[in-house]
Amino acid sequence: MRYIDAFCHFSPPRYFDALVESPSGQKDIGKRVRGIPALYDLDLRLKVVDQFPDYTQVLSLGLPMVDRLWGPDKTPEMSKLANDGLAEVCAKHPDRFVGYTAVVPMNNPEAAAKEAERALKNGAHGVQLGTNVNGKAIDGPEFWPLYEVIEKSGKPILLHPARSREMIDYQGEAKSKYEICSVLGWPFETGVALSRFIFSKIMDTYPKLKIVSHHLGGVIPYLEGRVGHSFDQMGVRTSDEDYEGLRKSLKKRPFDYFKDFYADTAIEGARAPMLCGLDFFGADKVLFASDCPFDKEKGPGYIRSTIAVLESLDLKPADREKISYKNAQALFGVK
Amino acid sequence: MRYIDAFCHFSPPRYFDALVESPSGQKDIGKRVRGIPALYDLDLRLKVVDQFPDYTQVLSLGLPMVDRLWGPDKTPEMSKLANDGLAEVCAKHPDRFVGYTAVVPMNNPEAAAKEAERALKNGAHGVQLGTNVNGKAIDGPEFWPLYEVIEKSGKPILLHPARSREMIDYQGEAKSKYEICSVLGWPFETGVALSRFIFSKIMDTYPKLKIVSHHLGGVIPYLEGRVGHSFDQMGVRTSDEDYEGLRKSLKKRPFDYFKDFYADTAIEGARAPMLCGLDFFGADKVLFASDCPFDKEKGPGYIRSTIAVLESLDLKPADREKISYKNAQALFGVK
Repeated sequence: MRYIDAFCHFSPPRYFDALVESPSGQKDIGKRVRGIPALYDLDLRLKVVDQFPDYTQVLSLGLPMVDRLWGPDKTPEMSKLANDGLAEVCAKHPDRFVGYTAVVPMNNPEAAAKEAERALKNGAHGVQLGTNVNGKAIDGPEFWPLYEVIEKSGKPILLHPARSREMIDYQGEAKSKYEICSVLGWPFETGVALSRFIFSKIMDTYPKLKIVSHHLGGVIPYLEGRVGHSFDQMGVRTSDEDYEGLRKSLKKRPFDYFKDFYADTAIEGARAPMLCGLDFFGADKVLFASDCPFDKEKGPGYIRSTIAVLESLDLKPADREKISYKNAQALFGVK
Repeated sequence: MRYIDAFCHFSPPRYFDALVESPSGQKDIGKRVRGIPALYDLDLRLKVVDQFPDYTQVLSLGLPMVDRLWGPDKTPEMSKLANDGLAEVCAKHPDRFVGYTAVVPMNNPEAAAKEAERALKNGAHGVQLGTNVNGKAIDGPEFWPLYEVIEKSGKPILLHPARSREMIDYQGEAKSKYEICSVLGWPFETGVALSRFIFSKIMDTYPKLKIVSHHLGGVIPYLEGRVGHSFDQMGVRTSDEDYEGLRKSLKKRPFDYFKDFYADTAIEGARAPMLCGLDFFGADKVLFASDCPFDKEKGPGYIRSTIAVLESLDLKPADREKISYKNAQALFGVK
């Protein structure tokens, strides 16, 4: 079976150098990314890809997002550096890296729309966004020009959970205690961001916008009952906002928007959740992805285990092809 | 099939009167609970239960938790009022209400341990806890005497997600925007609390403690991959705490603690998530529950849909009995 990995991470050389030189890069972040060579060492990365027959990757920059490393004056040029770097890597090895997504300077919304336009015109196959910008939501009106640009391009948004230390706030507590904010917080973050895209009316205003949620929709499929019935009753619990009015003004039932999102299979090789997520989104909306190289082996681990779990499922041949590579070809416009 | 509803809500008369008289009760909260008569009107509640053949309930107080309604001076007596009230209801109608759980004044930890002891001695079949106390975690040392009492009793904790407005904190944003904090936030909250029971070492210190997580484990089963692999790598992302040391000092692999929790089926009648949650916890650890009366019909809705989804599953007969009533009989010590 052919596989196109829809969401995996790489840091092109000149961008990587700038990352580790940055103030944050000289501390924890730099230490962490340096510990995963397949994230920035092209030869090593090629070796990882070549372990698998008929397997290619669509490259996305690895966390952290640019807005976490530099201020709004610098993120436009750093985004361009990253995007042009990924374009270069793909141009050099089109038989392994069939495409890439662009990052944009989200702490400079005006520049973000411009860089999205430039990068997409330059051949980027999508735009990767973090679910928040240093704790700030990404559905505010300052970002709508960006969404207009992306919708017009026909390319998708790849939605990656961003640092969610703000998501866990017990009184007086260290916000990242026990790493719960990333282990549980990131999928929750994804669910929050998807919900906000809906209720802010971005999805109504830009109905052709396609969003691929990392980690198979975050928490959404497992909360199918709540996302259906509880959002149907929006407004019942709250009286200080007119949520009932908001819900009724949406073009669709809230639940239906969730079903219209895309989702990737990067769930660390778990099987029962894969069935749950596939049931929710359907074969037309699920894309194979590994989250390489963030596995224990720092390269091939999740590729191997995700392929294995997909091959263990009893899928119709046409659905298998869609999930494994055809949805990616259609969505990104790659081979 | 016999069904014992392990987690559903009722407010006994004198407690309900006090609730609606309270400062908070006179506002939103009172309005909301008054809108659900089967929550406090015993005759109506009996009619709901009698719609189903061979179906009984273990009663738990409805939200809000006492600590959200009164200060630490008052919550001890209000907890006693609630607990004695539920005892009374069960004594009157033992053929429909086979047992009840007690609440404790969590904003007065010393009194909480005392009330737990009193209520359990008085015949309560478990203790219901909210996942936080007005935003404060429930795993701090001030609560360990309470956990010692509960462990000694052999009765379970029923863990209910508590208000999680603190859980969503975007800069300058209303924390309950779009009701995401309850629709998505509550199951996330449950996952956070379960994680904290583990990493605080409460589960190692009180190994016989049994915890029933509402809504089929919150988000945990769907995040099986992360809860396994990512918690296995605890310490890799963080250098300001010795999480690797903490992880290694635990008696079990983090993942195994999650598998040892119990979980109820109150997920609004969703089917694919039910399969996912059952796969994670296993038939020995899952208990039928409806979350009655918080359905659209304000009474029988989730009872009906949860029974329907369970009956649609291909379960071994012994597993079906366990889930439907035998686990509840063993866990609560009820008929």
